[in-house]
Formats: sequence, C-alpha cells, structure tokens
Amino acid sequence: MKVAFQGVHGAYSEAAAKKLLGLSCQTYPLETFERVFESVEKAHVERGIIPIENSLAGSIHQNYDLLLSRRLHIVGETYLRIEHALLCHPASSVRRLKYVRSHPQALAQCSRFFARHKTLTPVAYFDTAGAAKSLVENKTLDTGAIASVYAARLYGLIVLKNNVEDQPNNYTRFLVISRKPWRPGTGTASKSSIAFIPKRNEVGVLFKILGVFSLRGIDLLKIESRPNPQSPFEYLFYLDLLGSSNEKQVARAFDHLQEMVLNFRLLGSYPLGKGRFHASGK
Amino acid sequence: MKVAFQGVHGAYSEAAAKKLLGLSCQTYPLETFERVFESVEKAHVERGIIPIENSLAGSIHQNYDLLLSRRLHIVGETYLRIEHALLCHPASSVRRLKYVRSHPQALAQCSRFFARHKTLTPVAYFDTAGAAKSLVENKTLDTGAIASVYAARLYGLIVLKNNVEDQPNNYTRFLVISRKPWRPGTGTASKSSIAFIPKRNEVGVLFKILGVFSLRGIDLLKIESRPNPQSPFEYLFYLDLLGSSNEKQVARAFDHLQEMVLNFRLLGSYPLGKGRFHASGK
Repeated sequence: MKVAFQGVHGAYSEAAAKKLLGLSCQTYPLETFERVFESVEKAHVERGIIPIENSLAGSIHQNYDLLLSRRLHIVGETYLRIEHALLCHPASSVRRLKYVRSHPQALAQCSRFFARHKTLTPVAYFDTAGAAKSLVENKTLDTGAIASVYAARLYGLIVLKNNVEDQPNNYTRFLVISRKPWRPGTGTASKSSIAFIPKRNEVGVLFKILGVFSLRGIDLLKIESRPNPQSPFEYLFYLDLLGSSNEKQVARAFDHLQEMVLNFRLLGSYPLGKGRFHASGK
Repeated sequence: MKVAFQGVHGAYSEAAAKKLLGLSCQTYPLETFERVFESVEKAHVERGIIPIENSLAGSIHQNYDLLLSRRLHIVGETYLRIEHALLCHPASSVRRLKYVRSHPQALAQCSRFFARHKTLTPVAYFDTAGAAKSLVENKTLDTGAIASVYAARLYGLIVLKNNVEDQPNNYTRFLVISRKPWRPGTGTASKSSIAFIPKRNEVGVLFKILGVFSLRGIDLLKIESRPNPQSPFEYLFYLDLLGSSNEKQVARAFDHLQEMVLNFRLLGSYPLGKGRFHASGK
C-alpha cells in the first residue's frame, strides 16, 4: 500500500504510518499537507496520513480545514508517543558535539536536557527528521540532531541518549485518509468524526445538539468549538463519537442533528485506535 | 506597568501587550512560559502575557497546563492578527537577498511567497523577532527575515513587503495574567474561563453540564475537551462563557457545576476582548 505523508523520510508521520499500516507499506514524503490530500485525490497513493492533534500543542486546525474543504474520508487513526532522542553521525561521539539541530518546537521540548548540557548549542532546523538526514548527507561530526529513534535507524545514526524530552505525555494523534470510506466489519469498535455549524446563534443551541447524542445513549469522545475561518460570526464544531454511521442510532442522530446545523459533514467512521487519547467515553 | 512575555523584543506577544496595555507598558522578555508565570508569581512584574490559541494552529495546551498548575488569574484578553512581513537590513535591498530567516512555522505560512520567489532560500530560526534582531546584530546583508512590522520598527529594519502570509485569517488570542483577580466595573461586558473534569464518565454527562449554563440563559463562547495529561482515563474541559463570577446567575451555575465535576477551576473573569474569535455567542 502506498501512503503519502508531509515531511522527509524519518518523520513522526511516517513512523505512525508504519505503526498502523504495517512496515511493508510504501511511504511517500511530500512538502505540504495540501500535497498529501491532492496525492490521495489523484490516486497517486491509496492513503494519506496526517497529524490532527497533539497532547501539548492542541488540534491542528489547518488539517481540519483540509478535511472540510476536500472530499476524502478518515479511515483510521493511531496515537504515537513523541519520544525525542539525541543522535549523532556514527563517526562522531558525544564529546565531539558542539551543536544540536532540530525543529525549534522539539528543541524547546528538550529544554531541561539543554539546561543540563550547557556545552551543546541548539540550532533551529526545519524538521526533526531533516535534521537527522542532514548529518549523514554532509557527514557533519560537530553537530547532533534531536529526532526519533526511527529516524536514527533509517539514516544509520547513533542514538546517544533516548527520551531527552521534558514531558513524557507528548502524544500525537494521526488520521489516515482515503478516497473511499471505511466499511465497518462486525465486532470492530468504531468511532466517527463530524463537523458542523449550528444554524442559529441562540443560547443553549449546543445543549440541544448534545441532546441528540445523549438522549440516544451515544458516547462523545471529543468536542471542540472554533470560530469559523470562513465566517467570523459563526462557530465550527468538531465532534468525535463512539459508533459508525451504519449503526441505526448513530445514523438517526446524524439526521436529527441536521435539523439544527448547517454544513454537516461526516469526516469518516473508522476503527477506534488504541491509545490514551480516548481511553474513556463521555 | 511591567509585563513579562516569552520570546525576544519584537515578538508578537510583546505587540499584543502594547496593544492591550498601552505603549507605555514596560515589557520584559523571558525564555520560557514557565518563567513568565514565575515572574508574575514572584511580583517581579505586575502582568504576564501568553498566547492561548491560534486560528490555524489551535489551543496551546501547554499554557492551559500552566494556568491550571499555577494560581494566577486571567485579567484580560486580546486578539492579534498575525501579519508576516519580509524585512531586511537598511543597508541591504531586495536584490541582495539570498536567504530569509524565520521560525519554520512562519516560513511555512509564507509558502506561496517562496514559491513565487525561488531565488530566496528559507532558513530556519528560533523565532520571528529573533530572526529580525539577528540581521541588525551581525549587519547581515544577504539575508532577510520574516517577522512583524512591529519587529521591523523596533530593530530599524526595512519592510520590503507586507502580508507575505498565505492565509489572511491567522489570529492569535493572548491572555493577560496577574496575581490578583480582575474587579468588574459596571457596564463592562465580561467573560469567564473555567476548567473542570467531569466526575463520572457516563453517557450524557457533558449534556447535563451544559444544562447548568443553558437552563440559566448563559452564553457559551468556547468549549474544548482534552484527555487529562495527569490521568489518561479522564477528560479535561475548557469552557469560556459570557459574564463574570460576581454575577448571581454565573455564580449559581458555578456552584451547580461543582456538584458534577472534579477540580473545578475559575481561571479568571475579565473584560471581553475585541476581535473575531468571539464575535458570536452560543
């Protein structure tokens, strides 16, 4: 199976694809998220994988916008713990390092490590995997990289120290997108992601909307409101719930919801991914 | 008034502080958000200013975590449109530029500009304002920066081109934090931010919680659920609503809410900021 992702080989997105779709899937690095969507739409690849939310940094609205503007389907999800490692070229060693390259956000997530190792100067780079790759390409010996162990293996780098991140609870949720919707099998726990804009801005409209689900005993897993980027006087809602659109009660809830909202969109029904993000139902 | 912010002089946070608290406020750049909170707690400054959500990148959970773990009060908010400009040293010109420095996220937000100007190579830097500052510090003439017009003025740089960002709807919401809560005056429209964990993970608990507000006619402005970083089997909710905690109905709703939730926290009541994020009530 061919899968497109944003970034360079060794990116966390690629590691997530291999985790969910198997090591044998062929991964295609692309420059932007838009390109990932386009490459699925044009059938250059069967699947795309995109990050959608991070436990420290929040929901990636940009990718929600693409899910809304394009007509692809979410067909899977997975959760990846973001573990940063200090890497160096195999011909180098910890004593030779003066600089450490990575994305500024990754460097900031390792601030305690840098506070303890004052001889190492952090240097900003476009992405974690690109920083790892650059060490091999130019045989850089005085510079290390902060990236994943996955990137280290891919580029033949040495892992000098694992888990140099400050916070252990750094998880990213990834979605798999496809041209065709997922077909639920029997006995598979599933989840649906929807987006909508309430029709009227009246007090209590959200209460009524949630009634659509709670009165039918449907568990909500995520709710988030956001000003509609297309229209500043409206709110856009994202909702994740337990169950798939081919279940009668869920389908009825969606019909009922459409009486109260504009622009209802089923972004996809898909198998429930394993991970801490949704260990509980609400 | 002394105000702490994360970053270097010329940062968007500093521009937001000047916008909300007036040009005469004295701003203190600090390395991390933790330091901003500490400096307010220790009374080194009267106020801190922190970004809390961005229209493209989502809520900054890291700063919500600090609001929850520290005991400071939100006393104000403001919305800043993030407008990126291409800057250069006054002794340079557009024809001399080969590289453009900025934070990778800012560079990515200007991808169409770089696609149209292939001779300019983007170079990753720690932050936008730092990139602007670096041009002056080293009198760099072959390199420009992507940063705000505010940073350009501060460092005496030339604005070669304004609004080089792809998306015009890039807004950041900033919060002002203080040791003492805000005291509502008469006739000031106000807003409250709260956080809580529902007591029981039962179907419909969120519906009941929203009933606390909707049955009292209280408008909700934002709702967001998030897995509790401290306990993976619980969800943490953020809610913004119209009204301040000294209004009878709001105070009653908070009392009622505490029957159903754990760890109720009033993060602050404060004057409603102007901006597109909350042009509507729900």
